[in-house]
Amino acid sequence: MADNTQIVLVERPTGKLKESHFELRQGPMPVPGDAQVLVRTILLSQDAANRAWMQGPTYRAAVNPGDVMHGYALCEVVESNAPDHQPGDLVLGEAGWQEYAALDAGAVQRAAKVRPLTHLLSVLGIAGKTAYHGLLNVAGIEPGETLLVSAAAGSVGSLVGQIGRIRGARVVGVAGGPEKCAWVVAELGFDACIDYKGDALPAALGEHCPRGVDVYFDNVGGDILQAALFAMNQRGRIACCGAVSMYDGGALTGPIGVPGLLVVKRLRMEGFIVMDFADRDADAERDLSAWVADGRLKVVEDVIDGLENAPRGLIGLLAGENRGKRIIRVGPDPRS
Amino acid sequence: MADNTQIVLVERPTGKLKESHFELRQGPMPVPGDAQVLVRTILLSQDAANRAWMQGPTYRAAVNPGDVMHGYALCEVVESNAPDHQPGDLVLGEAGWQEYAALDAGAVQRAAKVRPLTHLLSVLGIAGKTAYHGLLNVAGIEPGETLLVSAAAGSVGSLVGQIGRIRGARVVGVAGGPEKCAWVVAELGFDACIDYKGDALPAALGEHCPRGVDVYFDNVGGDILQAALFAMNQRGRIACCGAVSMYDGGALTGPIGVPGLLVVKRLRMEGFIVMDFADRDADAERDLSAWVADGRLKVVEDVIDGLENAPRGLIGLLAGENRGKRIIRVGPDPRS
Repeated sequence: MADNTQIVLVERPTGKLKESHFELRQGPMPVPGDAQVLVRTILLSQDAANRAWMQGPTYRAAVNPGDVMHGYALCEVVESNAPDHQPGDLVLGEAGWQEYAALDAGAVQRAAKVRPLTHLLSVLGIAGKTAYHGLLNVAGIEPGETLLVSAAAGSVGSLVGQIGRIRGARVVGVAGGPEKCAWVVAELGFDACIDYKGDALPAALGEHCPRGVDVYFDNVGGDILQAALFAMNQRGRIACCGAVSMYDGGALTGPIGVPGLLVVKRLRMEGFIVMDFADRDADAERDLSAWVADGRLKVVEDVIDGLENAPRGLIGLLAGENRGKRIIRVGPDPRS
Repeated sequence: MADNTQIVLVERPTGKLKESHFELRQGPMPVPGDAQVLVRTILLSQDAANRAWMQGPTYRAAVNPGDVMHGYALCEVVESNAPDHQPGDLVLGEAGWQEYAALDAGAVQRAAKVRPLTHLLSVLGIAGKTAYHGLLNVAGIEPGETLLVSAAAGSVGSLVGQIGRIRGARVVGVAGGPEKCAWVVAELGFDACIDYKGDALPAALGEHCPRGVDVYFDNVGGDILQAALFAMNQRGRIACCGAVSMYDGGALTGPIGVPGLLVVKRLRMEGFIVMDFADRDADAERDLSAWVADGRLKVVEDVIDGLENAPRGLIGLLAGENRGKRIIRVGPDPRS
C-alpha cells in the first residue's frame, strides 16, 4: 500500500514558529474502522489559530509534539465504512497535515457543490462565515458607522471590511506595510488602511476615523486593540475574533483601560468562534454567495502547492505575508 | 445671609487620595437664577467613582482643582424659580459637597416618597439600580449559575449578591479581610466569600466555584478581574461596573488574556452606567422595594454625620472600610 506523507509537530514552540518544529515523514496508510471514512486531502486550510492550538487546549484539543499537525481540509472520500459517504464524495473535516486520514464519518461534513473548490475554504468556509457572523451577529454594524478591521489583508479581515462596505459603513483597515495598505484600499475598496508598522496608531486612527470607531473587528489583540480601545465611541462593540499578535511568541500583556474604558464608554467586547453560529450558516452562505456572484465581494486566495510547503506557509502567514486566504494544495481536484 | 460650608478639591491627586487634597471653606450663599432652585443638602452619596472623576472626563465632566467637590445628594428645595418645584420638596441632584446649591430645575429629580430617606441613595438609588440593571440587564443570571461579585461588602456588591441569590444563583463574594468575608456570608447570605488580601485567588476560586464562574460582576478590575477571567466558564458574562483598584493610584495594567480568553471561551465583557437603563428604572424600583419589604434583601448603610467628614469618608471608602452604602448626613431631615 502507498505511503502517507505526513507533517508532524516535533517540538512545542515557545517563541516564533520555525520549520525545525516540524518534520516530514512517511507514515502508514490509515485503515478506516467501522463508521469511518478514508479520505485523501485535496486542499488544506491554514489559519493563524493553528499556532494557538500548539500552546495548549483552546476551544479544541491542543496539538502536542509527536502529533500529525492538525488542520482543516477539503478531502475526497477514497473508501467508506459509513452508509452516508461514497468514494468520490467531497467532504470537509479535520484531516490534518497529511495525504490520507481515517476520519469518523460523523465528524466530516459533506461539501457543497461549489466551484472553484477553494471557495469551500475561503469565502464559503470558516473564513467567510467567521467574517459574516462576527460582524453581523456579534458586533452588529449600521449604515454610517465606522468599522475598524485589523489584519485587513488577511482571510477574514479582507471579507469583514468588504461586508462592512456592503452594509454602508465607513471601513478602515489596519495592515502591515504601505504596499499592503495601498492594496487593501485599491483592491478591496476599504475607505482607508493604516500601516501599523509605519504609522503612529493613535494619530492615524484620529485621521482616518474622524468620528471615532463604532465597531472594531479584532483579529490581533495587542497594541492595535489597545489603540482601538481609546478610539472607540460610546456604546462601541469589539468583536474578538483572534489574537494573532500573541500567538507566535508575542508579549503577554493586557490592554490598559480594561475594564476602565469599557465602563466609561459602555463598550462591549465579545469573543466568538464560528461554530457557535452554525444555526445561522445558511444565511451566511446565501448572502456570501450572492455578493460574490454580483461582484460586490472579492475573494482573495493565496494558494501554495505541495504539502511539504505547509510549515513555511504557516510561518509566513503568522508573519503576515499572505493576502487573503492561505490554502495548501495537497492533491489534485478529482473533477478537474 | 448665612454662609455656605463647602469642601473644595484644591489639588488633583496623582496617587492615593488624602485629606490635604481638600479644603473646607465658607462660600457665599448661592442665589438661584431663572428656572433654578436653591437646595439644602440633607444626605450626600459617596461612591468610588467620585475618585475617578478627579482623573479627568469620564462619562461626566471632570472635577478640577478649585471646584467644590462634585457629589450626588438628596436635598430639600429652599427657594424655587421653577414652577415644578416648591419649597419643602425633596429632590435628588448634583449638589456637590456643600450645604447649599443653586441647581437647574431640569437637572434635579423629584424624590419618591420613601422612608427611611437613606434608601433614596442606597437600595432605591444609584447603588440599587446599578446592582439590578448590571446583574439582570447587562450580565443576565440563570438559576444554578455561579455568580462572582467583587467589592462584595460594598454598596453595589452587597445588593448584587443578594439579588443573585434571589434569582437562584450560587453567589461567591470577594472582599478584603477575613472579618468582612465572614460578615458577607453570615449577614448577606452569600454562599462563600474570598478574602483577596489573604487567599490565593486562583485556588480560592477553584475551591468556592467548583463549577466555574458564569457571571462576574466586576467592581474593581485589576488582579481580581485577572483571576476571574481564568475561572470563567464558556459563554460567561462580565458586567464591568467599576475599576476601584485603578482609581486611587493603582497600577495601570491590563488583564492578560484579553482578548485571548474572550475568544477561546466566547466571553462577553460589557461596561455600563446606571443611567443607560433609566427606561427600566420602574422595574428596578418595583422589584427592589418588594424584596426589601418581604425581608429578602437586606439594606446595609454606613452613615457618617457631618459634611466636614466627607473627605475622610471617601478616603475610607476607597480603602474598603465601609460596609454597604456610605452616606454623609449633611443636614437634618425636614420631616423628622
